[in-house]
Amino acid sequence: MTDRRRIYLDGNSLGPPSPGTLEALQAVVADWERDLIGGWNAGWWDLPVTIGARIGLLLGAAPGQVVVGDSTTVLWFKLVSAALRLRPERPTIVTQADGFPTDRHVLDALGARVVAVAGDDLASAVGSDTAVLALTHVDYRTGRRLDLAGLTAAAHDAGAVAVWDLSHSVGAMDLHLDEAEVDLAVGCTYKYLNGGPGSPAFAYVAERHLSTLDQPIPGWVGHADSFSMSEVHVPAPGIRRVLSGTPSIVALGALAAALDRFDGVDLQALRAQSLALTDRCIQRADELGLETVTPRDAESRGSQVSLRHEHAWSVVQACIDAGVVGDFRPPDLIRFGFAPRYTTLVDVDEAMTRLTEVLRTESWRKWLNADRPTVT
Amino acid sequence: MTDRRRIYLDGNSLGPPSPGTLEALQAVVADWERDLIGGWNAGWWDLPVTIGARIGLLLGAAPGQVVVGDSTTVLWFKLVSAALRLRPERPTIVTQADGFPTDRHVLDALGARVVAVAGDDLASAVGSDTAVLALTHVDYRTGRRLDLAGLTAAAHDAGAVAVWDLSHSVGAMDLHLDEAEVDLAVGCTYKYLNGGPGSPAFAYVAERHLSTLDQPIPGWVGHADSFSMSEVHVPAPGIRRVLSGTPSIVALGALAAALDRFDGVDLQALRAQSLALTDRCIQRADELGLETVTPRDAESRGSQVSLRHEHAWSVVQACIDAGVVGDFRPPDLIRFGFAPRYTTLVDVDEAMTRLTEVLRTESWRKWLNADRPTVT
Repeated sequence: MTDRRRIYLDGNSLGPPSPGTLEALQAVVADWERDLIGGWNAGWWDLPVTIGARIGLLLGAAPGQVVVGDSTTVLWFKLVSAALRLRPERPTIVTQADGFPTDRHVLDALGARVVAVAGDDLASAVGSDTAVLALTHVDYRTGRRLDLAGLTAAAHDAGAVAVWDLSHSVGAMDLHLDEAEVDLAVGCTYKYLNGGPGSPAFAYVAERHLSTLDQPIPGWVGHADSFSMSEVHVPAPGIRRVLSGTPSIVALGALAAALDRFDGVDLQALRAQSLALTDRCIQRADELGLETVTPRDAESRGSQVSLRHEHAWSVVQACIDAGVVGDFRPPDLIRFGFAPRYTTLVDVDEAMTRLTEVLRTESWRKWLNADRPTVT
Repeated sequence: MTDRRRIYLDGNSLGPPSPGTLEALQAVVADWERDLIGGWNAGWWDLPVTIGARIGLLLGAAPGQVVVGDSTTVLWFKLVSAALRLRPERPTIVTQADGFPTDRHVLDALGARVVAVAGDDLASAVGSDTAVLALTHVDYRTGRRLDLAGLTAAAHDAGAVAVWDLSHSVGAMDLHLDEAEVDLAVGCTYKYLNGGPGSPAFAYVAERHLSTLDQPIPGWVGHADSFSMSEVHVPAPGIRRVLSGTPSIVALGALAAALDRFDGVDLQALRAQSLALTDRCIQRADELGLETVTPRDAESRGSQVSLRHEHAWSVVQACIDAGVVGDFRPPDLIRFGFAPRYTTLVDVDEAMTRLTEVLRTESWRKWLNADRPTVT
């Protein structure tokens, strides 16, 4: 590995620690040591909701509609299940072909008919038998961004419920869930939000659905009166009903510290920075003669650029060796994620200059026959 | 609050931090900062299984049968669902009346018929229509411990699957899941195991069920080839298949540190210490003329003692004020949990002496009309 400055372009997979993370963890342990069980009365109990409210600001969500806890997968399972229960007479889930694999696995496991179509055909695929339109906003491979407002409206026109996975969106752009009348959404907090590996995910439930939302995993943390120890589950009246068991307070502490970095951030400016970064990357890729898979139309673009190369895996390894950390996505994509909260145009230019060098010297050939690790 | 030494008898609700917890969290943040996405290749990926194996030692489980991730509620949901799928032709779940509320809520939500009977009637309630016998090993209120081996055998005699919640057992006694031929089990890690508030729970799946276990929330972390990004979910061949989304590595770091404290602990000795503590508490309660709700028969006793008092809530507050932290369980129970890993007979005697004083001086009357906090 080079001793050149590391340029991290994989924050869309795992964001780096934020200033204050360690101090936040120290504070959690100090509280735990001092308050013991009393910690639940001294603030822990409300953390999933107070942290949720802070994420809500990044989603364009009025207070009381976002909560944090569980993994993205588990929340996706809960909310798509709940969406199906909102339309019990309809048999079908419509989703995008080649969506995020885990999201698809969950859809396939719910007992509904799953219809997967290309991005351009989504609006017309939603019909009178569609219960749920379940979509990933930004494609993890290509970086294509779907039209959140338009597709939500198409779902509603057909009488369906729209559920979005915002894992590759939140923290990299302005979002307007309330304005778009999104029904339900989930998202990851360890990508652009930098909450730490495996940090708890968030769920958004539009106010109008809160009183009837019926998710499949009842638990004491989502009970209307958690400490009544009642034998009958009565869901909490608000967003807490999405919760089941106890979320990790240590993990929430790290996430809260990461969110400090987003306090007061102008989301339009964040999006402008993101587009400036991806524009520059695409321009440099053009100069290199590399095929850009990510849409050139800004509206249809997330915060990453995916470039095609026959030996993408080896090129990514050579880039990492040159201090540019990107990601490989099978079969032939080099993926650079641009976290606009901390990535600059200087980083993009330096990264692309090093990529140019890797391609010119063909230093990637050294990885052609290398063993690939199980984990990427 | 007194300035007398605090005696913590609520470790069965939330255990205290262990030595090394802070250092473990510092190490996780340092790894995260240094390795970023590479952390998954440098050890994180295997943590749910390696930590699971360490918990397996406390369960009497041979390697490869225990994994950590999600909350206890979510794992209970997954494993009872999976148990029902092992007996698709049978309609009934048998459980104990007055079991742990969350466990019951999940059972009621699964679409099966739930038959809840008193502890003494469980064995005879299991019949040819029983798919699953789903039980909490130690009752959170009374401290009664069910016969794990005997009831598992009764389930098997009827052709049913036995699923146990070991939340109030693990870390306080010897357990013998393999020997008892338990099918599936879950448990909490923030009680006697001291993993920290909301630390990830564990799941046990007997070796013989691993290849067919079908749990309802497929996800990339439990995929046979997580990084293939395959559209079709293929469950991992081993215990990983229980996992769905990404577990919190920060939370797992704290849990790993807590488990250090159990390395090499003799579980029979741990159980002997637990019984010595509860015996002494019961003896002192007898001297005080307080009714003990917890079974006197050692075989039927967990690691807590519950005492009945008309004004139990106020008495618990007065005890806390006198430095003895116990717990109230509605409607009239004072609950003292004895974590045998760090609680001594000296603690029990001092706690009971202070309780005696509280009752003699009736200092609890001061709380008679106090507001009770939402969280206890």
